[in-house]
Amino acid sequence: MSVRVGLLGCGEVGSAVARELLDHDDFEIAGVAVRHPDKVRPVPLDPRLYTTDALEVALDTSVDIVVEVIGGISPTIDYISAALLSGKPVVTANKELLASPCSSQIFDIAHDYGVPFFYEAAVGGGIPIVRVLKESLRGDRVRMVSGVINGTTNYVLDRWSEGISFEQALDEARAAGFAEADARADLSGRDSAAKIALLASIAFSRRFTIDDVDYTGIEAVTTSDLTLATARGETIKLVATAERAGDDISLSVHPRPLPGDHPFAGLGSVTNAIVIEADLAGTLTFSGMGAGGRPTAAAVMGDVASAVV
Amino acid sequence: MSVRVGLLGCGEVGSAVARELLDHDDFEIAGVAVRHPDKVRPVPLDPRLYTTDALEVALDTSVDIVVEVIGGISPTIDYISAALLSGKPVVTANKELLASPCSSQIFDIAHDYGVPFFYEAAVGGGIPIVRVLKESLRGDRVRMVSGVINGTTNYVLDRWSEGISFEQALDEARAAGFAEADARADLSGRDSAAKIALLASIAFSRRFTIDDVDYTGIEAVTTSDLTLATARGETIKLVATAERAGDDISLSVHPRPLPGDHPFAGLGSVTNAIVIEADLAGTLTFSGMGAGGRPTAAAVMGDVASAVV
Repeated sequence: MSVRVGLLGCGEVGSAVARELLDHDDFEIAGVAVRHPDKVRPVPLDPRLYTTDALEVALDTSVDIVVEVIGGISPTIDYISAALLSGKPVVTANKELLASPCSSQIFDIAHDYGVPFFYEAAVGGGIPIVRVLKESLRGDRVRMVSGVINGTTNYVLDRWSEGISFEQALDEARAAGFAEADARADLSGRDSAAKIALLASIAFSRRFTIDDVDYTGIEAVTTSDLTLATARGETIKLVATAERAGDDISLSVHPRPLPGDHPFAGLGSVTNAIVIEADLAGTLTFSGMGAGGRPTAAAVMGDVASAVV
Repeated sequence: MSVRVGLLGCGEVGSAVARELLDHDDFEIAGVAVRHPDKVRPVPLDPRLYTTDALEVALDTSVDIVVEVIGGISPTIDYISAALLSGKPVVTANKELLASPCSSQIFDIAHDYGVPFFYEAAVGGGIPIVRVLKESLRGDRVRMVSGVINGTTNYVLDRWSEGISFEQALDEARAAGFAEADARADLSGRDSAAKIALLASIAFSRRFTIDDVDYTGIEAVTTSDLTLATARGETIKLVATAERAGDDISLSVHPRPLPGDHPFAGLGSVTNAIVIEADLAGTLTFSGMGAGGRPTAAAVMGDVASAVV
């Protein structure tokens, strides 16, 4: 019998997930909650699957697992809570919610009721960094996690340092589909801050939220900073870091000039990279496509497969 | 109550694992099987824990989990079988055994009796590549896995291309602890072949053994090959690849000249790197310390923690 998946949201990631589910005989789409059922989407779904009632999908007793790719904090938190409280494993890509102070509600429900709750897709797109920190390194002690984990700022800084203006670079990023219409969370460092809070929570087994992160965005960067860096053979990247020093753990996001041979210096715009330093494993480096429908769907599908086994 | 671990073997990796187990209150060492109980080891264990009877440790009903770091095919296969048949989860670092045709016996026992069987440490030292292929990418389709996964040949090629002789380079690698006294498995490509067979088995969900790998070692490389490569700005590395083309999957290990900007070109001697290409996730790159007691112990400890949860 196939596993019935309830899909909350059907944007870029949701559509890619829906297409994968249609391709796998083991899965069946039970319902898709969207704001606009009549909108044309790039995946051929039976129109009867669409509903505007996300809570209905989350509580549907015929649904085996819920995938949440709506994003945002409220009302999404209610849908996730409802699904978990009714015993359904939940897979989410929602870094904003998970890094917000209210996320403790969700983590607590999942923990207290023993319901599987997965969020690989919330950080690093197709890079399986959540699972690595959670499972592979759980016998180790992490000292530091550092990464370039926002594609929009990567793209903008790249093009900007090539000589076009900040505004032009941002327009290009939007046209290429890297940046949202509202890119404030990316540019201000807030998106990276949410992601590093989430990674630090796993790495250091202590709950961190975005409020614990000292962050600045690339708005602090000037054209002359970029010119100077280029003249020195350096590249400016928005670097997120969580670091342990004794009992203190500090979380930060800042634009940093990196030397040309730094592992983050040569990263292409969609590429994210994350370095982990751990006592036993030493230095581990991971890179891959950090955004986009298909890489994020890879992470969602890995979680879905894990959740139902 | 602490988890009782039976340790088979106490060499470089075994000692590092033993030290970690001593440091964790959750674990207790139940017994350590070694060939020479009186040998001085770098970890302070109660001498009464040592035994020369590995089968006794594998079958001990007070042992909760068995860690095998003896290596070799026979008689190690019997100890692993005995542990699994008596219902104990087994964690092993034994790539030679797992890539041999007789490994099907072990995989079948673990599968048929539903006993956890983990082998992250068999490939890539501290790089969590087994778990990534097995779990993170299980909702994806892997097209290719390629890597530099042997430290000895990396070291020898590096130093050799810097102008010293092959023999000197090999002696240095031995003195630095990278190469075994008997380095034939490394130099002939057999070690890399075992590892790529194992990775391909996971990536393509089909059993491959070392017999399926077309491999040559670095013995085929000459000093003039290296001089020529250097003159061209290339670096010769021993590259292992498993690739799908239609229904065909080909496995190979060969020394290859790589352009200077190739992700494998700049790898330091102990560093391994692995690239995965998958339909959804795109290209993922992983690098880290591929050998040594502590990185390998990181992988073993991650598996131990997973096996007992």
